[in-house]
Formats: sequence, C-alpha cells, structure tokens
Amino acid sequence: MPSMDLNSDLGEGFGRWTLGDDERMLAIVTSANVACGFHAGDPATIRRTVQGAVARGVALGAHVGYRDLAGFGRRNMDVPSDELEADVVYQVGALKGLAAAEGGTVTYVKPHGALYNTAAVDERVATAVAVAVAAVDPSLVMLGLPGSAALSAAGAAGLRTAAEAFADRAYTPEGRLVPRREPGAVLHDPDDVARRMLRLVTEGVVVAVDGTVVPVQADSICVHGDSPDAVAMAERIRAVFDAEGVRLAPFALGLPASRAAAPGTPGG
Amino acid sequence: MPSMDLNSDLGEGFGRWTLGDDERMLAIVTSANVACGFHAGDPATIRRTVQGAVARGVALGAHVGYRDLAGFGRRNMDVPSDELEADVVYQVGALKGLAAAEGGTVTYVKPHGALYNTAAVDERVATAVAVAVAAVDPSLVMLGLPGSAALSAAGAAGLRTAAEAFADRAYTPEGRLVPRREPGAVLHDPDDVARRMLRLVTEGVVVAVDGTVVPVQADSICVHGDSPDAVAMAERIRAVFDAEGVRLAPFALGLPASRAAAPGTPGG
Amino acid sequence: MPSMDLNSDLGEGFGRWTLGDDERMLAIVTSANVACGFHAGDPATIRRTVQGAVARGVALGAHVGYRDLAGFGRRNMDVPSDELEADVVYQVGALKGLAAAEGGTVTYVKPHGALYNTAAVDERVATAVAVAVAAVDPSLVMLGLPGSAALSAAGAAGLRTAAEAFADRAYTPEGRLVPRREPGAVLHDPDDVARRMLRLVTEGVVVAVDGTVVPVQADSICVHGDSPDAVAMAERIRAVFDAEGVRLAPFALGLPASRAAAPGTPGG
Amino acid sequence: MPSMDLNSDLGEGFGRWTLGDDERMLAIVTSANVACGFHAGDPATIRRTVQGAVARGVALGAHVGYRDLAGFGRRNMDVPSDELEADVVYQVGALKGLAAAEGGTVTYVKPHGALYNTAAVDERVATAVAVAVAAVDPSLVMLGLPGSAALSAAGAAGLRTAAEAFADRAYTPEGRLVPRREPGAVLHDPDDVARRMLRLVTEGVVVAVDGTVVPVQADSICVHGDSPDAVAMAERIRAVFDAEGVRLAPFALGLPASRAAAPGTPGG
Repeated sequence: MPSMDLNSDLGEGFGRWTLGDDERMLAIVTSANVACGFHAGDPATIRRTVQGAVARGVALGAHVGYRDLAGFGRRNMDVPSDELEADVVYQVGALKGLAAAEGGTVTYVKPHGALYNTAAVDERVATAVAVAVAAVDPSLVMLGLPGSAALSAAGAAGLRTAAEAFADRAYTPEGRLVPRREPGAVLHDPDDVARRMLRLVTEGVVVAVDGTVVPVQADSICVHGDSPDAVAMAERIRAVFDAEGVRLAPFALGLPASRAAAPGTPGG
Repeated sequence: MPSMDLNSDLGEGFGRWTLGDDERMLAIVTSANVACGFHAGDPATIRRTVQGAVARGVALGAHVGYRDLAGFGRRNMDVPSDELEADVVYQVGALKGLAAAEGGTVTYVKPHGALYNTAAVDERVATAVAVAVAAVDPSLVMLGLPGSAALSAAGAAGLRTAAEAFADRAYTPEGRLVPRREPGAVLHDPDDVARRMLRLVTEGVVVAVDGTVVPVQADSICVHGDSPDAVAMAERIRAVFDAEGVRLAPFALGLPASRAAAPGTPGG
Repeated sequence: MPSMDLNSDLGEGFGRWTLGDDERMLAIVTSANVACGFHAGDPATIRRTVQGAVARGVALGAHVGYRDLAGFGRRNMDVPSDELEADVVYQVGALKGLAAAEGGTVTYVKPHGALYNTAAVDERVATAVAVAVAAVDPSLVMLGLPGSAALSAAGAAGLRTAAEAFADRAYTPEGRLVPRREPGAVLHDPDDVARRMLRLVTEGVVVAVDGTVVPVQADSICVHGDSPDAVAMAERIRAVFDAEGVRLAPFALGLPASRAAAPGTPGG
Repeated sequence: MPSMDLNSDLGEGFGRWTLGDDERMLAIVTSANVACGFHAGDPATIRRTVQGAVARGVALGAHVGYRDLAGFGRRNMDVPSDELEADVVYQVGALKGLAAAEGGTVTYVKPHGALYNTAAVDERVATAVAVAVAAVDPSLVMLGLPGSAALSAAGAAGLRTAAEAFADRAYTPEGRLVPRREPGAVLHDPDDVARRMLRLVTEGVVVAVDGTVVPVQADSICVHGDSPDAVAMAERIRAVFDAEGVRLAPFALGLPASRAAAPGTPGG
C-alpha cells in the first residue's frame, strides 16, 4: 500500500489577524509547517495550531522565516550568516517549547517564503539554515525541494532530508517548478491536481507543461493553506488518495535512520 | 563554607544596540538572566551571551518579559492569561534552543521588569507565568522575591523556587524592598553593599533603613548589569566574598530535589 | 434636513493580513478612522485606505493606538505621558503624510481600543493624547464618547470635539454604554439598530435597556467594520437614513469654528 | 566667505537603548539626519533629538530606512516599490509631525544604511524613494551621493538635490568612495580629516588614495555620529572651519529655488 504525506503552512495568523483555516486543514494534512513568529504566528496562535496538530497526530514542522511581519517573510533579506543561524535556532527553539508544552514534538524544519526560495539556490544561506537546525536538534529532518541547495546543505550538516512536490504547480520537462510569472504555472482544477498527485505517488512521475512525463521525487506533497480554494483542493487530494488506497502518514515516520545523508552528499 | 549565587540581567542588547557589559559581568556572576527577545535580546545577541555563559560555567536563566521592545518590558501590560502563558512558553523555548545549540542548559526562569513586579503581587499573572514554565519544562526553577505571588504560584505549579535579595536596595523593617521612589531606596557605595551582602550570606540578615536587623531569605543575590557602576559593585561583592571564604556557585546546584514545593504551598 | 456622520475603523490590515472590507465600508461611511501602524496598518495598507477615502470624499481620522500589533491595541499599557505623547504625534504625523501624498487631509483623531477606553476615564492619559494632538495640529477635532475624559482634555487643550454614539450598543438609563460583559450589551438586528439610530438623529434620544428614553448627544455614529455583519448593519443604517431624508456628511464639516471649547471647559 | 554644512545621523536610539551622543553632535553639526522609527528611533527619542535640533537651529532631515530594527536598516531588503513608497511617505510624515509639534520643519530627506546604498545604484529603488518624497512634500531636498541614482531620480521627480562628501572616507581617482572592504578606506586622524575637508570647501577637491587631486562636489559633509571618535572628528572639523573662516550653515538654506532640477534631468 503506497504512502504519502501532505504538508501545509499553518499557524499563519498574528494576534487579531487570521489566515487560512487551520482547523479544516488539520483534518486533511499529515504534516503542519507551523509559523514560528518571525513572518507570522504570535505565540497564542501558534499554540492553538500546535494543540490541534497534537490532537490529530499531525506532525509538527518549524516553518522558519525572515524577521519580517510586514512582508510576511516574502521579501528577500540580506541577513549575515551568524544572524540567520541565530534567528533559525531561536524560531525552532520557540516552537519546540510550545510543542513540549502541548505534549508534542517538532520533527522537521521547512524554511518559509523568501528564505525557502533563497535557501533553495544560495549555498551560504542554505548552509546557515542547515547548521542552525543541526545545532539545535540534529534529529530534525529538513524538508525542501529535491536537488535544492537547502537539502544539500542539510545533508552536509548531517541532517536527514525529505523532498516535497507542489500539488498546484506545473513542472518543466526537467522536473523543476514552472516559475510563477509564466502562464500556466499554477494549477486550479482540484480533480486535475488530485489525479496528478495520485500518479506521482503510484508512478513517481508528473506530466510536464509540454506533455512529457518526468520523474519527480517526493516524500511529501505541499498543499497551500491560505485560500478557501486551497482547502478544497487539499480535501480533493485526500479524498482521491483515500479512495485509491494511498495511505496518508507523516513523511518523517517513513524516513529510515539510514536515510541520513553523509556529509558532503547532496540530500533529498 | 557558605555558598551564594550572584545573578545579573544579561543579553539585553538588541541588534546594533548594546547594553551593559556582558563580558565583564559573566566573569563575576554565577547565574545569567538572559533576555529572550521580547523586552530585549535579538537571537544573535542572546547567542553570544549564552556562549559566554556556557564557556564560564555560568547558569542560564530565561529572563522572560512582556512583548515591548520600545518600553524595554518596563511598562505594565494587561495581557490575558492565555496569551501570557504562550508568550512565556515561547520565550523559554527560544532560549532553550539557543542554549542547546551551544551545549548549555536553561535551569531557571526569572520574569523581567513590569512582569517581575506584577507577578510578585498579582496572583493571576503569577499563575500564568508559573503554569507556562511548568508546561514547557517542569525541572526549571523559578527565581523571585521571597514571599511573592510569583514564587507561591510556582510552588503551586510544582516548580522548585529560589529567593533572591537585591544588593543595591534598602530594606524595610519587614524585610521588603524600600520602594524606588522613596529616598535612600537605592544604595550606591560598593563597600557598604558588599559588607551588607556578606552579612546576608553569613548571618541571613540585613540592616533595614531604620537600623533594625531583619532576616532575609536568599538563594541568590541580584546585581544589576546595565550601568558601569553596577559592574564595579558586582566586582566588589565578588572580591569580598572571595576574601571571606564565601563560595560562589549557581543557586540551582544547591537546590535539593526535596526543595520542590508541594502544590498549594507558598514557595521561596 | 437632518445630517449625520457615520464613522468606522478602517485600514486595520497589516501586510499579508486583511481585516474588514474597506472597499464596501468606504461606500457607506462618511468618516474613516484609519489605523496608523501601531495597533494595525502597515503603510501600504493605510495608503490604499486613504486613496479609497479620498476618492469618495470620506473624511480621514487618525485612529491612534498603543504600540501593540500582537494585541491589536486592545491590551491596556502603562505608557508614561511623554512616551504616549510622542507616540500619538508620530502616528498622526505619519497619517498626515500619507494623506498629503494622496491629496487628502486628516481632520480628526479618535483613539483606538485600550487607548480609547483608558482615555475615556483616565485624565492623565486623556491629557497626554489631547496635548499631543494639539501640538501636531490644533485644527484637528477629537472624536470620542460624550462626557469622557478624552473630550474634556481635548477641550482643555483647545481642540474642537465631537461626540459619537455606537450603533450596535445598548445604553443605560443614564445614557452610558452597557458594558460588553453584560447580557444584551451588543445589538445584532440591523433593522432594529437602523431604527434606533434614525430616532437618535431625528429626536436626539435612544431607548435604554430598561425601556426609558434617554437623550444621547452624537455628532457621529460609530459602525464597526471588522465583521461581515457589521457591513450589513452599516448598509442598513445608511439605507434607512437615505430613505428618511437624513443627509450623511462628515461631522467635521458641520462643526462651526465657534464649537472650539475654551480651555478648561469639558468638550463634547 | 565660504560656507559648508555638516550633517550627521542622529536620533538613533530606541527606547532604553542609546546610540551616539546627540547632545554633543547637535552642538557641532548644522543638519541632523533624524531616524524615523524603521531602522531606529522610537517617537520619544526622535522627539528629544528634534527638540535639541530646533533649539540650536540645526536643520531637520528625515533619515528614512528599511523596516528592520534588528538589523538597524543595514541589511538589504527586496521591498516592492509600492510598499517602499508607502514606507518612505509614512516615515517622512511621522518626522514632519514630530517636527511640527516642536515648532520645527523637515527640510530634507536622506536614505539610511542599506536603503542609501541601494538607492545610490538601483534605479527602481531610487525612483520609489524619490516619488514618495515628492508626493508627501515636493519642497523637500534629497541629500545623497553626487552622481547617484538617488539624486538622479530625485531630480526627475522634481525635487531639489544636494550632494554630500564623507569626511572619514578615502576617495578613488574617479572621485568615488573607496569601498569599505579595501585597506585605507576609512580615515581615522582628526587633523588629517579636518584639513582634507577644509581643502574640499575652499578648492572643491580631495586628494585621492593614489595622490591625485580630484574634484568632489559637496553641498554638505557627512560626519558619522555613532562612536566617540566620530564626535571628536566632527569637533575638529568644526574647529578648523571656524578658525579658517568657513561659515557653517544648513545646506538647504543655500540651495536657490532655481537649483531645482527639471524633470528628467539628473540631479546632484
């Protein structure tokens, strides 16, 4: 019976402001990328998300970002490595504290927004994030794009890694994401998306924008959580998986300890 | 050979801004109340302070405060209990993360500024802080004023407690601090202060403002860290203690497990 | 033909987070209490709200609050007068700048949340706000509760004042708001509310919770903006006013210069 | 009698944290670049600096920066133009409010830190800043590097511009600043610096690192304010200027209205 993980960004409110529907998403996904207070997530909001995740057995990941509430962590920032390392350790530690207080455990880290994008291609930034995660808790798994600098650096730092695919994104014939600014980059039809993801799980491939069939590695599928459409799409994927006998389970459970990359080996 | 702990507020810079002389204070004190980012302390600053403390064997305490950088946590805020609990858990968790990354351990919690003052007298606030600390790590010790609501609530929450005296403050005949607004509340002569603290350690008493000798309970002595004078005063206390055979050691080491207050028992 | 002003809190998003429906509310109200960045409102959000208000001829008011994004300015803070004064001047100045850049003008100030509640009863806080507003621009009008310390202090500072009623709140026989914690304090039926406000405009009275008819002074009616219901209620009030021949216009236009309170005279 | 302006960064504390010695610098300089709250400067700190500047007749400039207290505005941020424009308008407006409250006037704008560096070379960022300043108050002067994108964009936006030289920096034979990372980029000897600046004022030239004499345009000389050395250096420059008959006066006073660049004309 094939198994797959669904991950989504959660805990992204801040005080009076809410974003997404954490309650509904927690009933769908198996891994929660929880905001840690720098791009979103005041402690009380985070705590509620953690409570919901713990109650449902959803895995907890630290969704670390740049210190940029006004920009929601989506604006790139030129943060020196020592500051970025400390920022990542701080955020992971804060979420670990909130998880401990609710009887849960943080099992993975996924950078957010601009930090995700930069760590995917910038070795210095990827290394700062990886070194920080390894320093605060070497048992954490790094979740990111297959072939990214983020996963390479994580592997080099001795961390286990997990690769994710994006449910609502088109792929190039090379197996990369079609950049958002290009037409057709984002998919909107829940049925289409659900069928694509089913094929990814069962065959390990997606159909690229040019119609070719390309292999894509994925330990987890990311379904976004900050629009009503996104919840519907995630529900559809879950329904199709349930109907087709795909077991949903946190990726971290499926990673053997031997999966840990050796230093210097690209991860993912 | 009598033993005593000296504690000081450290890590209170923020980014470009420095405050106090952490390097010199870490050579004097045995416990560091480290800012956790809400009233002061960006992660990189905190990390440097933690590194210095770990290198010198200085105990690490989480100096949790209100979320108020502009007011340095000194302005009272009416924070609902659930928000305050989450804020405290978040801060303690963040410091635990930074400590873990440097091979250290957070052993106690001391509220800062307005939160310290309010938790000393307000049962609701004291309980929120205590419950939060117990939730994130029940092995932590709560450091505070003897007889305060903060220590009572901590004891009720199952936490061990430790009482502190203030080196540079005058005491009333009842053994309380003379309020700052009253004349003579703050002491300035290093020699006088050092002799007073020596007597506190050896006899368990201080001379009150009216000349009477009053018993004062203290597992630790607080020496402030944000003025050059403060460093000189702390150095003088340390020198006198060294000369008189008072051993300086983190209070947390001296607390037997049996010290843990039973639920409902006032601590300190 | 009687005239009345409708005011609502707007610009209360922050970056990625939205709150309320500014576009729809700007089509209903005649005065916009615009967040100034301390409790809500990043500059880009504020600017969009200002643009919409200027385009529709809606009056601009500075909705100044405590520096507390995490608490949305709803948590009381013990801010010293000199800091509070500077905070108010800063916020009013910032909004004046954004208004000037869009060809608009800030005509009034209304404190937000905890600052509104505290300034209504606390003379020190009311005076700090009033002195700040008078210092930055003495032509500004202070909007607040009739009989409040906020309006008294504003009058004493030489500012003109305007009193507001709350559309969705029940009143005591003394003409005060029924505290929110009491049953029946908040009204929910749009038709009932619209009829009450029509009577307020035409007769200057509201029916209190005990059925007595009490006079209530109002230069403006506050309709809240952060729930879908609120928009519907505001639309209903506007529709009833339009149907019954009540002209809607910014209160500030209707305030004669002679309305300016003499120093020492309670305003409103 | 030749005339020159000295400008320095001031108001760069934040709450409990101080930076530089505003009191001493205000006795030396003729233009104060005042932090506006985004990289430094809480309102109460800004207000004190404004009060000091107004009392001494020092010109007020808005030192606008990225929203980055933790990085002191020195970390580059990828801020979209509409957000950057609103941020600049907000900051300028806030300072104008504080200036108005103290009977002063903001006469110029100088970007800070990473925003200064980026606006010097990046046309998009330079334009966003210039457009924002022109929108909030077209009478403001833009102060920056001669030949920079910042001054070109300001001229194109219809603003007057002023060029500044850096007292403590070495110049290339092309009249540019030697990058900080190169040896000899920063000058430390107060006498040497003072003589260089005297020659700049009287002859319009500086001696470059290779000994050649290069013309440098300057309406103002920047003397940094955040180290004790800087104050001593500024004092020495002022003393030499006083002794040699160089009149010190705000640059803005010396800019004829005809200096205003026509749209499309590079400024500076």
